[in-house]
Amino acid sequence: MLLPRPSTLQRTTRLFTTTSRSAAGRTSPTESRAIVYAEHGNPAEVLKGHKYQLPALEKGQVRLRFELAAVNPADINVIQGVYPSKPAVREDIGELPLSIMGNEGVAVVEGFEEDGTVEKHLKVGDRVVMGKAQLGTWQSRTNLPFTSLVPLPSSYPISPSQAATLSINPPTALRMLSDFVPLNPATGVTHKKKQWVIQNGANSAVGTAAIQLAKAWGVGTINLVRDREGIDKLKEDLKALGADHVLTYGEFLDRETRSKIKEWTKDGELRLALNCVGGKETSEMVKLLGLEGFLVTYGGMAKTSLSIPPSLFIFKKLTATGFWLSNWVQTHPTERLTMMNELASLVSTGKLQEPATEITTLGGTESEMSSVIREVMRKNEGGKGRKVLLRFED
Amino acid sequence: MLLPRPSTLQRTTRLFTTTSRSAAGRTSPTESRAIVYAEHGNPAEVLKGHKYQLPALEKGQVRLRFELAAVNPADINVIQGVYPSKPAVREDIGELPLSIMGNEGVAVVEGFEEDGTVEKHLKVGDRVVMGKAQLGTWQSRTNLPFTSLVPLPSSYPISPSQAATLSINPPTALRMLSDFVPLNPATGVTHKKKQWVIQNGANSAVGTAAIQLAKAWGVGTINLVRDREGIDKLKEDLKALGADHVLTYGEFLDRETRSKIKEWTKDGELRLALNCVGGKETSEMVKLLGLEGFLVTYGGMAKTSLSIPPSLFIFKKLTATGFWLSNWVQTHPTERLTMMNELASLVSTGKLQEPATEITTLGGTESEMSSVIREVMRKNEGGKGRKVLLRFED
Repeated sequence: MLLPRPSTLQRTTRLFTTTSRSAAGRTSPTESRAIVYAEHGNPAEVLKGHKYQLPALEKGQVRLRFELAAVNPADINVIQGVYPSKPAVREDIGELPLSIMGNEGVAVVEGFEEDGTVEKHLKVGDRVVMGKAQLGTWQSRTNLPFTSLVPLPSSYPISPSQAATLSINPPTALRMLSDFVPLNPATGVTHKKKQWVIQNGANSAVGTAAIQLAKAWGVGTINLVRDREGIDKLKEDLKALGADHVLTYGEFLDRETRSKIKEWTKDGELRLALNCVGGKETSEMVKLLGLEGFLVTYGGMAKTSLSIPPSLFIFKKLTATGFWLSNWVQTHPTERLTMMNELASLVSTGKLQEPATEITTLGGTESEMSSVIREVMRKNEGGKGRKVLLRFED
Repeated sequence: MLLPRPSTLQRTTRLFTTTSRSAAGRTSPTESRAIVYAEHGNPAEVLKGHKYQLPALEKGQVRLRFELAAVNPADINVIQGVYPSKPAVREDIGELPLSIMGNEGVAVVEGFEEDGTVEKHLKVGDRVVMGKAQLGTWQSRTNLPFTSLVPLPSSYPISPSQAATLSINPPTALRMLSDFVPLNPATGVTHKKKQWVIQNGANSAVGTAAIQLAKAWGVGTINLVRDREGIDKLKEDLKALGADHVLTYGEFLDRETRSKIKEWTKDGELRLALNCVGGKETSEMVKLLGLEGFLVTYGGMAKTSLSIPPSLFIFKKLTATGFWLSNWVQTHPTERLTMMNELASLVSTGKLQEPATEITTLGGTESEMSSVIREVMRKNEGGKGRKVLLRFED
């Protein structure tokens, strides 16, 4: 059944059944390829390729074809079963109950049942990102309620890999630079002095987005990264994105460096620290903040507690808090749309580049898909290297 | 010179000189007895009794006679030189530069130069507490600008010892129960569920004020204290003030107790933790808080960093912050007056009792005063026992 967007709001009651056609009139498969797990555990062992017949579209649902899906560090925790949000357990897609992985991705609307509502919000061919957490982006196609999708503005031309990495990490960076110390000019707050931010894990996808947003807004950044082979190249890359200063943790913990930081920021204000690591470097980072500073934690890669002297809370009015996009989006649906427009505009004008990515294609038999995804997980341990994007064959 | 409040606003230009008379017409001494230090160090060694001639009153100043002054734990840190606010160094009261100790106390207005302004705010005989930090309350008399004084409402009859302990600790408790999770009904916020607070150092002056304010406002409290001789009596005393539950840290760290706490609070909300200790008990306290909880630190008696798992910040939206009254009063002069009225009302109606106090009188020679204050400091180590109030002879 062809389900183009009609020019009128006339209700169409036909559903997709076993086959359907896209807006362009081609026949679309009704089978989806997915990466699933039946039980939690080591990602390199429990993930499996799985093919299943898509169920008929329900009222309010749209059929999506995923262009690309991102593999993020938190996905590993989801598969291990240690993350507070999880994909649904599906009883309808195999003999065992299975969960389809994937929190982030970009998809194209292939069709939907017109019901007087969906067509007011989406049309066939629209590109969308996920508006809710853990919807299962690691697959070729799916049905989802239109209410859980965020359409990307067609006014800003952006590539599939830009779109596939736009809905989690850049929003996390944007919110952390807006909601505590208001550094985003869109907040309407102006500052008398130049504003500075310090962050660890600065080469993460959130970190590199933060560097670029800060640069676009005239905010200085001090960026901390692990020492590693090729550190000079990494420093250059981050500076090319707009980083003012890049330091290894070793360099940072040197007392002289901290005097230098005070010198760099002495005519401005350093009131915001972004943390995805924890440990001693974070404690030292916080001590550099001025009065009424904020430590915003969005990750805990060091797997240790944060340790903060009580005097900073009492006498320097430090606030330590955290940010989790999944929480935020539940209470800010309208602000999210505004934000995605702002981010898409920054991407299309070259002010916000996606992280370095590599695309892994999943096709062939279920067993072949299992081998490929497990290899990705083995290589990806520790979240090093390029961000992996998954592309599923039909 | 007699300086009663005139019935008109006619300007009086006479100043106090070497002697002055109170409103009642008696002659007041122009010498003050004070406790001072010339250099920082061990309070039991560096504090000294000192007598000096009061300087002539300057424009806008009032002459005060202190009724009682409080010895608070933070005073020890001031004398040691490790506190971020310090009394002024006075070049005019002795051969060496000296600092007059004391942050809290209650005084009576003895007189002032009428200048068209002071008399609009104060009259002779008014009882005042200090509106700024470190004004030097450990003395018999002083001159202070009227703008640094907070008059106590005469409509609520309260005793000198109630007044002398009303301006630091009860305000700290009141603000911490109002400004993060709004539990004070005066904030205008109503809660659907019963609200709970958990606090450590619950037998401190702030802690006992928090117990009583919470009780007055229908908020439940879970109170943690150090195990000690006489723990049963202490538990009874705190319950008599209104504590719902009192636990030693040992009892608290028992896993079964924490299940009990969840049971006690299960129909309500526990979103606020007050901390003046630090250490492991604080980390465990924070884990009990529900979504969007606040850990408010106002002291660090354990002298260790606070250790908090990053997941609480990210997924439970915990905010860790601090409270210091000296900061708050600088930006909330009007709210402070409202608050002192609210507290005086609670004291005069018996809803807020002062902590157990004992009065130490300072008189005789400078050397005798030195002996007495040093003995107080030796006994007071660790802040145990009754709160000491100082009374100075003429």
